[in-house]
Amino acid sequence: MKTLGAPALVLASLIFGVSALGATQRAADRGSPIYGVKLPSGYRDWKLISVAQENGKNDDIRAILGNEVAVRAFRQGIRPFPDGSVIVRLAWRYQSSPRNDAVFPGPQSFVAGPPTNVQVSVKDSKRYATTGGWGYGQFEAGLPNPDPAVVQSCFACHRKLATLEKDADFVFTAYSQ
Amino acid sequence: MKTLGAPALVLASLIFGVSALGATQRAADRGSPIYGVKLPSGYRDWKLISVAQENGKNDDIRAILGNEVAVRAFRQGIRPFPDGSVIVRLAWRYQSSPRNDAVFPGPQSFVAGPPTNVQVSVKDSKRYATTGGWGYGQFEAGLPNPDPAVVQSCFACHRKLATLEKDADFVFTAYSQ
Repeated sequence: MKTLGAPALVLASLIFGVSALGATQRAADRGSPIYGVKLPSGYRDWKLISVAQENGKNDDIRAILGNEVAVRAFRQGIRPFPDGSVIVRLAWRYQSSPRNDAVFPGPQSFVAGPPTNVQVSVKDSKRYATTGGWGYGQFEAGLPNPDPAVVQSCFACHRKLATLEKDADFVFTAYSQ
Repeated sequence: MKTLGAPALVLASLIFGVSALGATQRAADRGSPIYGVKLPSGYRDWKLISVAQENGKNDDIRAILGNEVAVRAFRQGIRPFPDGSVIVRLAWRYQSSPRNDAVFPGPQSFVAGPPTNVQVSVKDSKRYATTGGWGYGQFEAGLPNPDPAVVQSCFACHRKLATLEKDADFVFTAYSQ
């Protein structure tokens, strides 16, 4: 039986590589299931809205950033959020920092570990009319989580806020000065 | 004895008000004790470097932002930080959120409460040569804390990092993707 020569192997790797890259790009282009929400370009440079920390299953520390439309609405207290508002929640593993604690007065320092996922909320009152005007996506390593149940759980939780606060427009985060 | 008439009272309030405003402005202009570090204009719009949480006396949740020079250095791993780098650490009271917990699966949500203080680190290797090239300031409600001991404690703590990590350039925070 003939074995594949080196040039054929290189060619196969290239084809496989290009094809994998293509599949990754297509997944990114499709966006999240149900909503088609994409990871916004340049979101890591966006302005800070606030920070938070979650215990339990999430066990993370997080930052909430917004595009210009969202940040203006937060700062000016505009509700409901205008169409075009995009809110991005970044989260990292919540980790004790033995390195900082070695310098600080006691064991007190917790920092951001490896990234867990990025959640994106997009306001489009027409396109997402059945979910309070918000479309959702969750991204891991830059790619949308393909499980529809993940994004279905977003509005299932955010909608509960409406029972507590009519004016929250389904948004948990408050702006921190 | 003649009492002051209304116009005189108004005039006195105006003079006192303007003078108090002037004193506030002068305090802001002077910057921090020892270093003369000022609260950088527009810092609240700067890019996010990372987040952290401190127990103990601080009991806060925090965000670390940077100007363009600092963020570029963080992202490209440039150490020591170039002159002109400015790092701003915002902190808020670390608060449990009964409102979020009412919606979440359990008592798990902690959010940013009222702001505590803002700490600013400015890199200027010539001006601050005796403190590792860094000048420090702590600001409360926009004004520099006037106690020299407060900013003296900054480098006293940051310098200890050098015993652990030579390449940290006295900076605790690592950039979070």
